[in-house]
Amino acid sequence: MAFKETRKSYQKEEFNDFGLGGKATSGHYRVLNKDGSFNIRKENVPLFEKFNFFHSLVSMSWTKFLVVVLSTYFCVNLLFASLYMLVGIEHLTGIRGSTATHQFMEAFFFSAQTITTLGYGQVAPTGLVTNIVAATESMLGLLGFALATGLVYGRFSKPSAHLKYSENAIIAPYKNINGFMFRVVNPRGNQLLEVEANVSLSVLRENSAMRDYYSLELERSKVVFLPASWTLVHPITDESPFKNLTAEELMRRDMEVIVVIKAFDESFSQSVYSRSSYKFDELQWGRKFKYLISHDNGRLSIDISGINETEEAALND
Amino acid sequence: MAFKETRKSYQKEEFNDFGLGGKATSGHYRVLNKDGSFNIRKENVPLFEKFNFFHSLVSMSWTKFLVVVLSTYFCVNLLFASLYMLVGIEHLTGIRGSTATHQFMEAFFFSAQTITTLGYGQVAPTGLVTNIVAATESMLGLLGFALATGLVYGRFSKPSAHLKYSENAIIAPYKNINGFMFRVVNPRGNQLLEVEANVSLSVLRENSAMRDYYSLELERSKVVFLPASWTLVHPITDESPFKNLTAEELMRRDMEVIVVIKAFDESFSQSVYSRSSYKFDELQWGRKFKYLISHDNGRLSIDISGINETEEAALND
Amino acid sequence: MAFKETRKSYQKEEFNDFGLGGKATSGHYRVLNKDGSFNIRKENVPLFEKFNFFHSLVSMSWTKFLVVVLSTYFCVNLLFASLYMLVGIEHLTGIRGSTATHQFMEAFFFSAQTITTLGYGQVAPTGLVTNIVAATESMLGLLGFALATGLVYGRFSKPSAHLKYSENAIIAPYKNINGFMFRVVNPRGNQLLEVEANVSLSVLRENSAMRDYYSLELERSKVVFLPASWTLVHPITDESPFKNLTAEELMRRDMEVIVVIKAFDESFSQSVYSRSSYKFDELQWGRKFKYLISHDNGRLSIDISGINETEEAALND
Amino acid sequence: MAFKETRKSYQKEEFNDFGLGGKATSGHYRVLNKDGSFNIRKENVPLFEKFNFFHSLVSMSWTKFLVVVLSTYFCVNLLFASLYMLVGIEHLTGIRGSTATHQFMEAFFFSAQTITTLGYGQVAPTGLVTNIVAATESMLGLLGFALATGLVYGRFSKPSAHLKYSENAIIAPYKNINGFMFRVVNPRGNQLLEVEANVSLSVLRENSAMRDYYSLELERSKVVFLPASWTLVHPITDESPFKNLTAEELMRRDMEVIVVIKAFDESFSQSVYSRSSYKFDELQWGRKFKYLISHDNGRLSIDISGINETEEAALND
Repeated sequence: MAFKETRKSYQKEEFNDFGLGGKATSGHYRVLNKDGSFNIRKENVPLFEKFNFFHSLVSMSWTKFLVVVLSTYFCVNLLFASLYMLVGIEHLTGIRGSTATHQFMEAFFFSAQTITTLGYGQVAPTGLVTNIVAATESMLGLLGFALATGLVYGRFSKPSAHLKYSENAIIAPYKNINGFMFRVVNPRGNQLLEVEANVSLSVLRENSAMRDYYSLELERSKVVFLPASWTLVHPITDESPFKNLTAEELMRRDMEVIVVIKAFDESFSQSVYSRSSYKFDELQWGRKFKYLISHDNGRLSIDISGINETEEAALND
Repeated sequence: MAFKETRKSYQKEEFNDFGLGGKATSGHYRVLNKDGSFNIRKENVPLFEKFNFFHSLVSMSWTKFLVVVLSTYFCVNLLFASLYMLVGIEHLTGIRGSTATHQFMEAFFFSAQTITTLGYGQVAPTGLVTNIVAATESMLGLLGFALATGLVYGRFSKPSAHLKYSENAIIAPYKNINGFMFRVVNPRGNQLLEVEANVSLSVLRENSAMRDYYSLELERSKVVFLPASWTLVHPITDESPFKNLTAEELMRRDMEVIVVIKAFDESFSQSVYSRSSYKFDELQWGRKFKYLISHDNGRLSIDISGINETEEAALND
Repeated sequence: MAFKETRKSYQKEEFNDFGLGGKATSGHYRVLNKDGSFNIRKENVPLFEKFNFFHSLVSMSWTKFLVVVLSTYFCVNLLFASLYMLVGIEHLTGIRGSTATHQFMEAFFFSAQTITTLGYGQVAPTGLVTNIVAATESMLGLLGFALATGLVYGRFSKPSAHLKYSENAIIAPYKNINGFMFRVVNPRGNQLLEVEANVSLSVLRENSAMRDYYSLELERSKVVFLPASWTLVHPITDESPFKNLTAEELMRRDMEVIVVIKAFDESFSQSVYSRSSYKFDELQWGRKFKYLISHDNGRLSIDISGINETEEAALND
Repeated sequence: MAFKETRKSYQKEEFNDFGLGGKATSGHYRVLNKDGSFNIRKENVPLFEKFNFFHSLVSMSWTKFLVVVLSTYFCVNLLFASLYMLVGIEHLTGIRGSTATHQFMEAFFFSAQTITTLGYGQVAPTGLVTNIVAATESMLGLLGFALATGLVYGRFSKPSAHLKYSENAIIAPYKNINGFMFRVVNPRGNQLLEVEANVSLSVLRENSAMRDYYSLELERSKVVFLPASWTLVHPITDESPFKNLTAEELMRRDMEVIVVIKAFDESFSQSVYSRSSYKFDELQWGRKFKYLISHDNGRLSIDISGINETEEAALND
């Protein structure tokens, strides 16, 4: 067909590769999931690599994180309560319970008061071993708390670009030709700077299971700021890999458009990346995006909720 | 008029766009407020995006932050005091009050002593449920404190370039032509490195409500350091979009000059951005900046307070 | 032999130098150890530079770190216990021991309760000096804990690229010529972006003890992502420094291939570097890497454990 | 004289400017102090900018920092002790002193036990107002501690390149011409990557008080690593501004060579800058640096302490 073979396999400057290659992603396949994660699973990963303590605890949801913290707290107190029982409950002054259950309960709460460095003092340790256990426990409590502080800060300061992508990409009239378009907004209050997009087309090779990757030239691939919405436009010129391709053909060749957007997040003063992709069934033909910005008295408003709204538009030939 | 149309709308290399475009900012409009924030409002933002917990608490003023922290502390203690009352005040030893009000007050302060892990022990929990509540409260207190630590550090370590801009830009003689100039100082003690400026002119198109953006070439757009003041100069050559434009015309065409300065902040070892803008009524003609630097015995002094001082200067033709 | 002398010693653009030079690394020598550390020792380093407190405590193993923290805790408590004894044990209320040993022990645990801000209150200070010591100790405890928190966070947030390199490099057929190849995987769950490799060949000069460094051109030196494995290929073209060299000659000339990989770690939003090297005895001839990726139903799997697996492959002439 | 006027004052690409300019630094003047700080004083800086809380506390010496922390602790306790006295010392149970001095002392130590959340409980608050003060104090204690934690971490994680420069620069023979040279070592254990130098010559203009700045071309301006020492060489070719200049002339024209080195610090994963300068009296003619590296059995050693050692070397004409 009319695909221009812009993929050069032996060239140093090329950057637009996903570490997968045409053979690995052969057949019908989605490279990037809608949320930007990779559609690939790693097997036989060594356990200590897989379970990276900090990374796991920083990435999990807040609910899960709280459950982990509170159950660790519970278990550690169980452990120390057992230790106090083992050493001899008589070395804790102020214990009133006479049954083992009651005494264990009191040892448990004494442990809680010790590990949080609360120390009411109603119950207090006497004797060498019990004192050693209590002194160690309060120290470990402080270290555990140092850990929790680091984790909480790590969770908060983890930068991420929460760009919102239009659900569908469109083929819309653009100047006297047509263009492949989608748009993004930054719904957050933070400012993104030096926003830069890298868009690629992945299709199966004609009469083959191999997959080819094409870089898509954008009308504008960088903007200084992203205060409102940004419509990314790939003009379908004669050089475009989209040229002469129909919706049916894109489906048959299992089209996927892969988007990577890089930006500088001013709040965190760090670079952030956002990824997404469009499959053939997320591409609408002969539509254009509705305008999101309204004016009133020298101030602009942008309606974030309208990002997916399109209207019919006759395509150019 | 004599505007050279340097704006190329279909060109990959162009970087000088603000994600707004000529149509969005049509009519009389200020793109950037004086403090560098955007003159645009986002509507229909999903609640969970709008209220980003960490971002809000890190960005608000210190006064507001203290109010939030202290009122949270107050409310949480109210809640836990109610819990202790609900479970039964008789499970707290050392309570002396006989009326409900007094008892609630004592429960409130017991809660405060527990959540801060102060634990005087005058009042102390007995019984299973009260002990569980107290142990949970002290744990939550530690987590809340971990949060506060993270927030306080986040507030401090948030880098920002506190550049001070001259209130007005000027049109001053420059070599045998004229120049558009403004100047900046870094009033802080921290050192800014690799300081880089990007200056754009925004005017309404002749006989149109559409707005055009022009990049302004600077005599020097980067400096290695910014130890003193930096006067940014756009020479009004024959290629300049300012060429042949009068003050009246700039007003009529709603001129705005948009400034973005990027630097590396040595204290925080991070990139920082500063933004500002000049409208037509903040532009003075036929003035030049007074010299800020004085010498004494091999040491320079710069008088920061004189940044706005100008004197008359005859313009070249 | 057929070495093309691409090393230009007087050229500004050159980046591929290791701050060592041909004379320093003369003779049989390994520049980089397998783990990426340099095979060089610094002597007569000033003590305060050598023992960088934060750097040391952040870099040591967790076991060592815990030992340091706990023994510091122990020693500081010994010190303060001595102070309380010195001032007079009678200024601590609640001491029950009658022998000096018992009293010291009680002073020791009182110190532990004070420095962790536990404060049971069974033992408490009276008198001016003892109170001053206790107030100072609790303050120092808080500062020490601030330190520990910073260290724990510093340890966690220290980014590092844990790339896994194939144990051996290979000479494999590549197109109609041969190639020098090795591969890497990222066994972790974090995503690496903009991965960039810099590969150099170091050999002894013909009939000399001097060492020459050659930059090796890669088929692809950058990939946008590294979701799976990445095979780095240096095609042995006529311009390659490998051209016409046999395994025997590479051994005689003490070959070392030095690899530096730079990437952006999305979890930490920071740049990370990974280094490794291959000596002549870690180079296999006439092998090719086995394929690691398997397909099932539109989802890829990569078997990390197979990274070293190769099979025979006839080389091209 | 033979100075080639490479300084172009009207050119966009130029980067090698220090925000000072030839007029500001006219006369005999040192731009950069030996430690890399600027020889310039800022006057009339607004107080709130000058006294940047976080920046000051993070930059001061550890001794000063400890003094600030401990005296703040002392003053805050004085304040709260006064408050407890004001409200009525009778609302603190456990006070034994009968004189006002004794009572104030006890209130002071109660305050210390409260603000550190130590809470022995020997002394404890009763009554509404005293309880409110104590609850507020413990809360403020936690916030203050959050602050201290942030500051301690900020102090540690502040990256800095502790490069050690040779005390003198030298003019040494280089190939068949001569070169201006100096060298640096990184005495620390951390690894610096992508080390990049920018060296400039500043001299007074012939028969003028104005100062000119010249960029000095280096034999190699970047190295991938800095494992050992790095000798920076500016070859004195016919194009060099040093060409035909004698030691006497450099003194008369108040020579200063300004050095800026940028690197990536692997420990902190951040960019760091180092600055220094050489005046005419820190330049030695006809010397060369002694070799710092020694070999033993395939391992290199570098003797950091020998960085300043030179030996005589006859210059080329």
